[in-house]
Amino acid sequence: MADIGNSGAKSTDPAVRQMIVKAAKTEVQTVWDRYEVMQPQCGFGETGLCCRHCLQGPCRIDPFGEGPKAGICGASADTMVARGLDRAIAAGTAAHSGHAKHLAHTLMKMAKGQAKSYSIKEAGKLKAVAARLGIAVDGRSDTELALDVAKAALADFHEKDTPVLWATTVVNPQRAKVLSDLDLVPKGIDHEVSEIMHRTLYGVDADPVNLLLGGLRCAVADLAGCYMGTDLADILFGIPQPTVTEANLGTLKADAVNIALHGHNPVLSDVLVTRAETKKQAAMAAGATGINLVGVCCTGNEIMMRHGIASCTHSVSQEMALVTGAVDAMIVDYQCIMPSMASVAECCGTTLVTTMDIAKITGAKHIAFTEEAAEEKADEIFDLAIANFARRKGKPVDIPDIKTPVVAGFSVEAIVAALSKLDPEEPLKPLADNIKAGNIRGVCLFAGCNNVKVPQDSNFTAIARRLLKENVLVVATGCGAGALMRHGFMDPANTDELCGDGLKAVLRAIGEANGLGGPLPAVLHMGSCVDNSRAVALTVALAEYLGVDTDKLPVVASAAEAVSEKAVSIGAYAVAAGLPTHVGVMLPVLGGPLVTEVLTEKIKGLTGGYFIVDLDPQSASDKLLAAIDERRAKLGL
Amino acid sequence: MADIGNSGAKSTDPAVRQMIVKAAKTEVQTVWDRYEVMQPQCGFGETGLCCRHCLQGPCRIDPFGEGPKAGICGASADTMVARGLDRAIAAGTAAHSGHAKHLAHTLMKMAKGQAKSYSIKEAGKLKAVAARLGIAVDGRSDTELALDVAKAALADFHEKDTPVLWATTVVNPQRAKVLSDLDLVPKGIDHEVSEIMHRTLYGVDADPVNLLLGGLRCAVADLAGCYMGTDLADILFGIPQPTVTEANLGTLKADAVNIALHGHNPVLSDVLVTRAETKKQAAMAAGATGINLVGVCCTGNEIMMRHGIASCTHSVSQEMALVTGAVDAMIVDYQCIMPSMASVAECCGTTLVTTMDIAKITGAKHIAFTEEAAEEKADEIFDLAIANFARRKGKPVDIPDIKTPVVAGFSVEAIVAALSKLDPEEPLKPLADNIKAGNIRGVCLFAGCNNVKVPQDSNFTAIARRLLKENVLVVATGCGAGALMRHGFMDPANTDELCGDGLKAVLRAIGEANGLGGPLPAVLHMGSCVDNSRAVALTVALAEYLGVDTDKLPVVASAAEAVSEKAVSIGAYAVAAGLPTHVGVMLPVLGGPLVTEVLTEKIKGLTGGYFIVDLDPQSASDKLLAAIDERRAKLGL
Repeated sequence: MADIGNSGAKSTDPAVRQMIVKAAKTEVQTVWDRYEVMQPQCGFGETGLCCRHCLQGPCRIDPFGEGPKAGICGASADTMVARGLDRAIAAGTAAHSGHAKHLAHTLMKMAKGQAKSYSIKEAGKLKAVAARLGIAVDGRSDTELALDVAKAALADFHEKDTPVLWATTVVNPQRAKVLSDLDLVPKGIDHEVSEIMHRTLYGVDADPVNLLLGGLRCAVADLAGCYMGTDLADILFGIPQPTVTEANLGTLKADAVNIALHGHNPVLSDVLVTRAETKKQAAMAAGATGINLVGVCCTGNEIMMRHGIASCTHSVSQEMALVTGAVDAMIVDYQCIMPSMASVAECCGTTLVTTMDIAKITGAKHIAFTEEAAEEKADEIFDLAIANFARRKGKPVDIPDIKTPVVAGFSVEAIVAALSKLDPEEPLKPLADNIKAGNIRGVCLFAGCNNVKVPQDSNFTAIARRLLKENVLVVATGCGAGALMRHGFMDPANTDELCGDGLKAVLRAIGEANGLGGPLPAVLHMGSCVDNSRAVALTVALAEYLGVDTDKLPVVASAAEAVSEKAVSIGAYAVAAGLPTHVGVMLPVLGGPLVTEVLTEKIKGLTGGYFIVDLDPQSASDKLLAAIDERRAKLGL
Repeated sequence: MADIGNSGAKSTDPAVRQMIVKAAKTEVQTVWDRYEVMQPQCGFGETGLCCRHCLQGPCRIDPFGEGPKAGICGASADTMVARGLDRAIAAGTAAHSGHAKHLAHTLMKMAKGQAKSYSIKEAGKLKAVAARLGIAVDGRSDTELALDVAKAALADFHEKDTPVLWATTVVNPQRAKVLSDLDLVPKGIDHEVSEIMHRTLYGVDADPVNLLLGGLRCAVADLAGCYMGTDLADILFGIPQPTVTEANLGTLKADAVNIALHGHNPVLSDVLVTRAETKKQAAMAAGATGINLVGVCCTGNEIMMRHGIASCTHSVSQEMALVTGAVDAMIVDYQCIMPSMASVAECCGTTLVTTMDIAKITGAKHIAFTEEAAEEKADEIFDLAIANFARRKGKPVDIPDIKTPVVAGFSVEAIVAALSKLDPEEPLKPLADNIKAGNIRGVCLFAGCNNVKVPQDSNFTAIARRLLKENVLVVATGCGAGALMRHGFMDPANTDELCGDGLKAVLRAIGEANGLGGPLPAVLHMGSCVDNSRAVALTVALAEYLGVDTDKLPVVASAAEAVSEKAVSIGAYAVAAGLPTHVGVMLPVLGGPLVTEVLTEKIKGLTGGYFIVDLDPQSASDKLLAAIDERRAKLGL
């Protein structure tokens, strides 16, 4: 390993490390290079003590009290960091719900017959969602229901006679009351985003606690956006079911047309997956063995859990996929696509294709995707990729011979179905009983991104390793799931080695009852980052089964290597839902002592949840376990 | 003047300068003190080359090419500054439209009989607005119309079958086509704000020009929010008509209960004004001569132009009102209220009252205002102020003996009415004819705030002085209007001295035709900052009368001392409307060479408008005059 230089400090993924070495040799600039050049990073920004919300600034507050104690307008450190946090939550909310809105429009176009490539894949879920929303179901056609659900979805973006239904109908009644009592029920998703932008304007809200409560309400709107995104994707593309596949750069194939699908929304990627077979002949005519679709980030999660498509890599290592030299085309939709991908693609012979009008990248080819012309656009993309393969054919590529088996796709429906093999009457009983008995000490959700500040995956794997040994049931989404899958945590062959005895027995019992001849994987892949909604759904189901509110459950969350503002808003809704929520990187609020105290302590008295900010994975694990044990004790367990 | 220290460098307003001296003596910390402590300000932030949109940052790009050339994600300088600009536009849009949404709810509550303190003050405008929106008017009651207009207003916040009506119906058809061709027509106001927050998230839009066009669409949504704010305020509170009043700190009265109304929305302040008389006895019982309401910032503009209430001060000098020691209560709603007001109020014996749930200030008293209980809340406020007067009575105060006569309230309706005295058939003809003849060389709108970086009012007064002498008709809004009123530009006694011969003659002709026995004031006060819509309305009316698009007119705008993100979004919609738009402070985009070139040059080829960033008032005046002359030349004038 001597030859990989400091790649170990960059990533703990051996495939990625190989590519880091290659990038250095071939002078491809990577995220780690840019991170190095960026050092030292601004301490004011890191602690949130920098404000650019008006043209009198920029202002910086000196946390040591030697320089400015307030912004030019008089904003205190706490006001400044609370405003900044609120805007991050607003951005995360806008992103998740923008994704959901896109799906709502797709559902509506489908129902109106304007988008022939789409259909209702899960009529049962359509009915269930409609019923939950209070839409009349009996005697109505799927198309009518789809139209009504799409309308209800779009209506949730603005103020109307009801609050946001995707918020109020997805939580248990006790939690709904808590949210209502605290004025945390959003009136409309976009309304809340706008209100945050208003209240964080120069000279509006200057009460840090008021700002934080406003931010939490927006975060509940983010939960609504996520949940809507999951619901509508399941209706249009199918409810994920456990599927066997694999992950890491070794899923690329030297002799195939490799197309990497990167971003978040299945609207385009699902069409590409279902249409790939029709382009196999054309690929073979160009000298390829076929078309090899692979996923990156959450688009990867979406197509993995519904179609078993392998995941190539995730988050901070996205450039490394291209460094292999084997990716003929990378097709991106939106979110988490580094702008650097254009220059890396150019260096590495990849055609980078942007597809969404709100997400162009200078230097990329733009194919404006529409649902109405989904198949044409898909074909255009395949043709580009095949043509690029023809140019690449015969040239050497460097695909690390590293990939890991993965069982992915544990939607709540799939988990309940698996549990029902143990108890068909009360599927949640085995889970609840094992929690009560201590075979399962608690549940932890791993979510969020890989942050360049953390050796890739190291926080995720260290904490997960520890918690699994302590019999904590681990579920994962997004690039948290990506991290854990690339390190074998979703390979059932590793379950016995990874888990403590109690958990191991439970996972084996479920696996065997389901005819798998072995245990479930140690970590259950619940989906993409909008699918943190699935973790909320599981928590709510458990709370309802046990007859307690969600903040009483031994359920915790960790965004151990968070990057995106989406991770901030997800963390905030986890706290609103009552969960102790770990963040493994600096949050730019630490410069505000009151805000830090509220978010990590005082908020407990309101929502029951709170943030744990800890950069050390061992000490973070201790705190997550302590939080679980504290709740167990209060439940008398 | 020796005894005022460097107060001259802080403000050119002599009343404010007196108070700066007092503040220094009494050790009240002011905005200028905090500005001094803040020096040097961060150059990265000033040029927009700092990004905190994800947790991998903060990132800073070295504009000299010696440090980082891109963010950690690969975002270029241009992407970074464009994203930052977009978020500022989104915040400005959210604020103006939040204000408008508040008015829409008030109108709806009024129509439903839930808010008895409000009524339809302008049935004619209600009908005109309804008709413009395509709402059936004939045979319908005012209440029905009000309900429909309120519904249409709220519907403009989200996607629906039509685009934002308050955008498409307020511009001339040619401009509507330009906006449509450039995809600059907003689908919903909050929708656009959210979309900006989504596209500026980590890993979404990384094409600076695409980002700028997105920002411009959001700015057109801001125009809609402003226009809606004006329309609904006029319907509920009356169309402003020229009114004689006065401005500056000398409007405070030592022996009266002084209540300063600060912020933006007339929803509360108008009720306070109409109700003040009922509390006169109580004030007198407490030993006061009565109640003296004065305005600050745009709440000040709203009540000045509708009720002739004097304006106390504006923007950067808001603290100085309290330094007099004579303000018994300051009642604030939202926007541009420095958080420092709480501590200054405490030092100076003022009761600071916040009234809006999205705008609390630590240390202030909060009275949660509702339209349903408007009068009770107003009475509670009066009682507080009177009680505080009782405590202050007999103590020395320092009210500068400085105030200026002001004629304010030139709504478009008022301007057209005044012009119609010259030509009842074609009221715009005299204006157009005088432009053609060169008596009026062009029109300039002064808008925006006072920025602590500029000696208060100095840019406004220097540019206005120059343009008036060059026969440019000057209209003003917001704290731009505030600046010019405090320096006598709205006192008709100064018209002759301030204006060039052509302009002087026109203003005199209009004034005399209207029986004023003298000229109009040199600068026409058009209202608050949402009322930049009125300037757009005037421009559009002129364009339609002349049969040309708005970008052909010799009309320019200047935000010479801008602070708020609202000023950024207003500037952007002025550019979208085709106007050369001056900004007199650094815009945090200058670190992006492409963005700077697009905003100051290339955008001309799209919307016809463009930004002029120039910190020197003389050279800015030259550029504004050159822009006017260029357009005159193209019109063959």
